[in-house]
Amino acid sequence: MKKVEVYSKEWCPYCAKAKSLLKSKEINYQEIDVTNDAEREEEMIQRSQRRTVPQIFIDEESVGGYDDLAQLNATGLLDQKLGLASQQALHEVYDVAVLGAGPAGMTAAIYSARKNLKTIMIAYDSGGQVGTTYEIGNYPGFQMITGPDLVDMFAAHVKEYEIETMLGEKISNIEIENKCKQIYTESGQEICAKVVIVATGAFKRKLNIPGEKELTGKGVVYCSTCDGPLFKDLNIAVIGGGNSALEAAVEMNGIAKSVQLVSTSDWSGDEILQDKVRSAKNVTAHKFHQPIKILGEESVTGLLIKDKQTGEEKTLELDGVFIEIGLYPNSDFILDLVETTERGQIKVDQNGDTGVRGIFAAGDVTDNRENQIIVAAGEGAKAALSAFNYLVTQV
Amino acid sequence: MKKVEVYSKEWCPYCAKAKSLLKSKEINYQEIDVTNDAEREEEMIQRSQRRTVPQIFIDEESVGGYDDLAQLNATGLLDQKLGLASQQALHEVYDVAVLGAGPAGMTAAIYSARKNLKTIMIAYDSGGQVGTTYEIGNYPGFQMITGPDLVDMFAAHVKEYEIETMLGEKISNIEIENKCKQIYTESGQEICAKVVIVATGAFKRKLNIPGEKELTGKGVVYCSTCDGPLFKDLNIAVIGGGNSALEAAVEMNGIAKSVQLVSTSDWSGDEILQDKVRSAKNVTAHKFHQPIKILGEESVTGLLIKDKQTGEEKTLELDGVFIEIGLYPNSDFILDLVETTERGQIKVDQNGDTGVRGIFAAGDVTDNRENQIIVAAGEGAKAALSAFNYLVTQV
Repeated sequence: MKKVEVYSKEWCPYCAKAKSLLKSKEINYQEIDVTNDAEREEEMIQRSQRRTVPQIFIDEESVGGYDDLAQLNATGLLDQKLGLASQQALHEVYDVAVLGAGPAGMTAAIYSARKNLKTIMIAYDSGGQVGTTYEIGNYPGFQMITGPDLVDMFAAHVKEYEIETMLGEKISNIEIENKCKQIYTESGQEICAKVVIVATGAFKRKLNIPGEKELTGKGVVYCSTCDGPLFKDLNIAVIGGGNSALEAAVEMNGIAKSVQLVSTSDWSGDEILQDKVRSAKNVTAHKFHQPIKILGEESVTGLLIKDKQTGEEKTLELDGVFIEIGLYPNSDFILDLVETTERGQIKVDQNGDTGVRGIFAAGDVTDNRENQIIVAAGEGAKAALSAFNYLVTQV
Repeated sequence: MKKVEVYSKEWCPYCAKAKSLLKSKEINYQEIDVTNDAEREEEMIQRSQRRTVPQIFIDEESVGGYDDLAQLNATGLLDQKLGLASQQALHEVYDVAVLGAGPAGMTAAIYSARKNLKTIMIAYDSGGQVGTTYEIGNYPGFQMITGPDLVDMFAAHVKEYEIETMLGEKISNIEIENKCKQIYTESGQEICAKVVIVATGAFKRKLNIPGEKELTGKGVVYCSTCDGPLFKDLNIAVIGGGNSALEAAVEMNGIAKSVQLVSTSDWSGDEILQDKVRSAKNVTAHKFHQPIKILGEESVTGLLIKDKQTGEEKTLELDGVFIEIGLYPNSDFILDLVETTERGQIKVDQNGDTGVRGIFAAGDVTDNRENQIIVAAGEGAKAALSAFNYLVTQV
């Protein structure tokens, strides 16, 4: 077995995801916790040329963070790199394949299994966006809970039932055959299911400006709850004006030296969060400003922004840029089968039905207006109950 | 102050509701716990001529159970009986009035308050149907929790926010005036709110056969989790074939001497519950049988049922009849304002909008197909966010 090393921190959702993926594949690894170890952290930055956690190495070669690892796995390259035999394709016919393991997917799986349906849940990671959320105050029943803790509660609930789970997989395509929906993963798996519930969620949007790609992981980050602590006493910008941007600004107010909150229009987030931002003493707002370019060579040194009203440009001197500008749905693999909005969100009716027989959808991948955990979970339950109704009325 | 007595048991959701209503009105009462006290229980049965808990007495006069107490309160008669001054009408204008305090109502209130909207929640009781549910295994995040415990979790969550709460109130009418929806309660309160979110839920359906009304509380019960333990080692029937009937049969299998499960058609409840019923050794199923008449003078002695296929009639000798045949929506007070189904369910779009400006609805009072806690909570969140969108786009 080759040597696998994982640099991690205590509070780090993507570290947890990376470790959980390695464990699910029974791959041994050495963990290097850099939480309070400046020396090992500096070593990590030197070896990887990145300042975000986790950083993973296979036989001394830098693999990158969780997304890089999961991408390797999804394409089957991780097995090759580690000299593992590929997993066998599954030959069973499932009643329901739930794609995704966020709040919508896990709830759909629980409801399917409670109906005694043979259920498989196939996902890239467990928990979806919830896993990278710091504090959650609006899931009824929990006054305040961290994202990873809520994911653990959901995952434990899933484990109560006979639900087969495949993690670290990306769906490449779905074909409707005679008796089943044939689901193909990028790693080469094939799964046959009578019903598919698409709950693949959404991903963070990118700015698509110069410097963004080059400096990703070198000061440009997309998960303030994950990487925020690495920017202690440094100067950062948060881009965006919605809930996640305002939350990031409030959170970083207590960590960073200064926070520049840049939004292209007025804020759209909750009033309660707007109040918090206004009273956060280290936050400076730049409304109606367009980010033009992220500056820096080895790491971020600044951000060029332009006043949309006067056309005036200015440079903010920074150590980090936190991009929190919303989501795009993860629906590429099914665009030719179901109807979607222009933004790629799957259109569903009130019961989670896509209109294509045997294909249902729930959560942030749909055209549902509200991207809330409790809403996604409710839609997941509805999709599963609709799937059950569909199955029992089949000849 | 007049003397108020409450006979109660340890596991008794309606006892909790009765005590919570009395406390909310600052009425002192003497509690008589009959959980393990056969003598005091017999005393209760003698004094009230009923064998269900709670039983409430005001100055030695039998008032009945929780519903009777709440009904007295809702009509203002409780205040008269106790010689209390009626509460003053509220003169404030609220942004949002949430009607109902079940999962949909409480979630809507939490979401409204998080948007800094001035919110009032008006309800008959806290928790709605959840409060009388024994075990809940399908609210994601809690593998198994009792109904009253989940209500407590929700209620504690509501208390985190500035939400005014009026319990023990029934809505009599709503009028749309110039600047507000004017809400009238049966006890004479008037509340003005810019937006109304209707989340008043649903009530248990009745059989409407001879003997049912006369023997209610004397062997005929509508809440097996509440009154089941009073039928220990007795013979009972459960009427219905949906989830709540199957749940009641499974629960009573471990308590009663025998359980006759009577349904007019095949079972429609979850497969997992059907399996449990099939393996419950004290349960006998009578599918495709119509209940004709409940027999008994002082208390239930039997049930006459008719085989729908052969026309044959037979009498089951029983001590109790548990009626679990579904729900009807609590929408009478708003039928002239919004569009409903034939069964009185309020029609809503995907965002909880009734189509009448400023009136939204969520949960079991709507035409949403699935009566699930997680679904109701999700719809409550959507209705509140729609209400917020409506308010911020008003001139």
